[in-house]
Amino acid sequence: MLTANLIRTKRDGGVLDAAQWRFLIEGYCGGEVTDYQMSALAMAIFFQGLDRRETAELTRCMVDSGERLPRVNDRPRVDKHSTGGLGDKVSLILAPLLACCDVDVPMISGRGLGRTGGTLDKLEAIEGYQTQLSTDQSSRVLKEVGCFIVGATESIAPADRRLYGLRDVTGTVESVGLITASILSKKLAANLDALVMDVKVGSAGFMPTIQQATELADSLQEVGAEAGLPTIPVLSDMDQPLGRAIGNANEVNESLDVLRGGGPEEVRALTLRLSAELLVATKQSSDLHAAEKLLASKLESGEAMERFERMVHEQGGKLSGHLPLGKQSSTVAERSGWVESIDCPAIGDAIIAMGGGRRKTTDPVEPGVGMDLHVRVGDHVEVGQPLWTVYEGPTACPPITPIRLSESNVPARPLILQRKSAD
Amino acid sequence: MLTANLIRTKRDGGVLDAAQWRFLIEGYCGGEVTDYQMSALAMAIFFQGLDRRETAELTRCMVDSGERLPRVNDRPRVDKHSTGGLGDKVSLILAPLLACCDVDVPMISGRGLGRTGGTLDKLEAIEGYQTQLSTDQSSRVLKEVGCFIVGATESIAPADRRLYGLRDVTGTVESVGLITASILSKKLAANLDALVMDVKVGSAGFMPTIQQATELADSLQEVGAEAGLPTIPVLSDMDQPLGRAIGNANEVNESLDVLRGGGPEEVRALTLRLSAELLVATKQSSDLHAAEKLLASKLESGEAMERFERMVHEQGGKLSGHLPLGKQSSTVAERSGWVESIDCPAIGDAIIAMGGGRRKTTDPVEPGVGMDLHVRVGDHVEVGQPLWTVYEGPTACPPITPIRLSESNVPARPLILQRKSAD
Repeated sequence: MLTANLIRTKRDGGVLDAAQWRFLIEGYCGGEVTDYQMSALAMAIFFQGLDRRETAELTRCMVDSGERLPRVNDRPRVDKHSTGGLGDKVSLILAPLLACCDVDVPMISGRGLGRTGGTLDKLEAIEGYQTQLSTDQSSRVLKEVGCFIVGATESIAPADRRLYGLRDVTGTVESVGLITASILSKKLAANLDALVMDVKVGSAGFMPTIQQATELADSLQEVGAEAGLPTIPVLSDMDQPLGRAIGNANEVNESLDVLRGGGPEEVRALTLRLSAELLVATKQSSDLHAAEKLLASKLESGEAMERFERMVHEQGGKLSGHLPLGKQSSTVAERSGWVESIDCPAIGDAIIAMGGGRRKTTDPVEPGVGMDLHVRVGDHVEVGQPLWTVYEGPTACPPITPIRLSESNVPARPLILQRKSAD
Repeated sequence: MLTANLIRTKRDGGVLDAAQWRFLIEGYCGGEVTDYQMSALAMAIFFQGLDRRETAELTRCMVDSGERLPRVNDRPRVDKHSTGGLGDKVSLILAPLLACCDVDVPMISGRGLGRTGGTLDKLEAIEGYQTQLSTDQSSRVLKEVGCFIVGATESIAPADRRLYGLRDVTGTVESVGLITASILSKKLAANLDALVMDVKVGSAGFMPTIQQATELADSLQEVGAEAGLPTIPVLSDMDQPLGRAIGNANEVNESLDVLRGGGPEEVRALTLRLSAELLVATKQSSDLHAAEKLLASKLESGEAMERFERMVHEQGGKLSGHLPLGKQSSTVAERSGWVESIDCPAIGDAIIAMGGGRRKTTDPVEPGVGMDLHVRVGDHVEVGQPLWTVYEGPTACPPITPIRLSESNVPARPLILQRKSAD
């Protein structure tokens, strides 16, 4: 097999077989297939796509490039993954909540880059919280608590790790096949029994249109099934941030509110729905309604909060109530009206400017920086009513007007969206 | 400027400007733009193409990555380049022939790879012939003789040299824009006043169809004009080998025959036509007819042969008549008929199998290996008439039947073809 010939086959619209994918990925790990050949192949894939079988083969090869996390007991293993967006703190709530319902949640998360926040950065706003655990350490936490939230180790799908870094600097990120293989390889390596995928749709997410989100959702579901991991995609709105808090420490605080049975309704609702899908998929509940009822009882009873505190403690964190935030200043409405839209890119950029997010992977993050929005699209606003609050770090907030008001009634946006059919 | 953004612009069908090409090529030479980014860009160019202005900008940047050959006198400087094919020995005759007509021919040639022969390999069949001359050495030969035929030095368009090597192993060779920039950058660095491009059409060349050849011819002509190098494309037939001899030593021998005023008619005719185009382009002749008459007289008079011998001598070669060939065996016709087609790929593969060509760039070449064809498409053949002769090296010739006969009359193929219009 000659690598250049395999690249040409894909370039000319052909389909590569299992042995060819194995040759490419094993060769990439072993050094016989070079970065420059892999990036040319990734660009050919951008144009020609991967079919479902090819995506599944590529996924399997990337899993096999590293270790699988060990099972620590007989409980079903589940996880949630999101395509990312502003204010998405669901992971912090979902992992301990599900751990109360007789399933294990071995969650491997990422850091924020650009306008999208990262679960690890949020948890690191808690003093002492360790995100880099060895496989032995994380297995111990899982056995004790039923969940962990850590960063990937070098041994989890190393081929994906390297290919993802390469795609980032060669303009080859935006390929449904490659995105699917990248997500599923890490989740398969975590040895899961079911995965729920929160595919965000809208201006603050990765997929601006419902068509694009549907394409990715279909791919994840079909390739997940082909690769042996039942995957349930849920499309949710990301044309406005999820919940009030956008940042790191303030998102932890909002998560604590939800874990205590309060917090913004949409954060609670999306968390319950995503969690319920996993209880049904693993046959822990008979249907979504029963599952949500069980899950809500775990929030109300304080069990979920207690589980979160145990996870934080086991991972080295010191938590005693809400985390401290940066210097606070609020803006009020100068006229009345209905909230028409929220400028998510402007909010994301302002948080990066204040040091609460990253421009490049090596930037540090200021945990206390962030923004709270006090309204959502469709809300009616009176003169003098608070619209948003900024928590500044050492760098002041640039002037922004993220909320646009209309003089006429604006409908609220649905939180969970229907997939479009493929054609 | 961020390289990944420029790759994305090209990927999405955008056009890069002069400053952006300069950033990419200077960065590539300086190490800020990596091989893996350049190969992803080359693949994006394969799909999205380059417009004429972009191709000219890229060409200029690649020229500027190295040195230009110095002018040694006031004579016009011309060259011929061919897209390559079987039996193409025109360079060996054209360079000394034009040197007899008050123009200089500073010819930088290449080696054979795959089924296509290389001028340098042919000349190295002459004992002692040196193809790797320094710029000072080649300038001295040019001053003395009016021509040289050498290999490229490291200092000629190094960006192209590196990019070409990268394209070869990443499936990104077949792009009209990139081929145009690669050819013209080396010719511009040679400081030419005119270039004639022999674009081969047919199964033994790089462009199988006249449409593809026309596309490349148009690109070379327009980008050459834009970059300041008058470029005249001529389309010629490569559905059968050029002349009788295919190999290295035997092609030198056939060139000597033509330089002495003899040799196969089609080799002489194509050489005269390509040379005449250059005499007209540099205003050394008023029209093609007058130019061909002048050139023919230089073959008849022995001046061209004498010039070739001086060039060989100045480049270290020892030439005394025809070169020795490998062990010879001929095949005769078992029935009569007309030559319908010649299987060029089979001939090329047989010569590689015998060691007369290269599979990879580091393979050595057996100079005495080759094949002579005694007939051309359209010729009538009687039983017992010789069809071809093989010159073997240490490895025997695999069984081949390269000539296919028809029972009915077959027309001869035209040597020089008309370009198709762009639509």
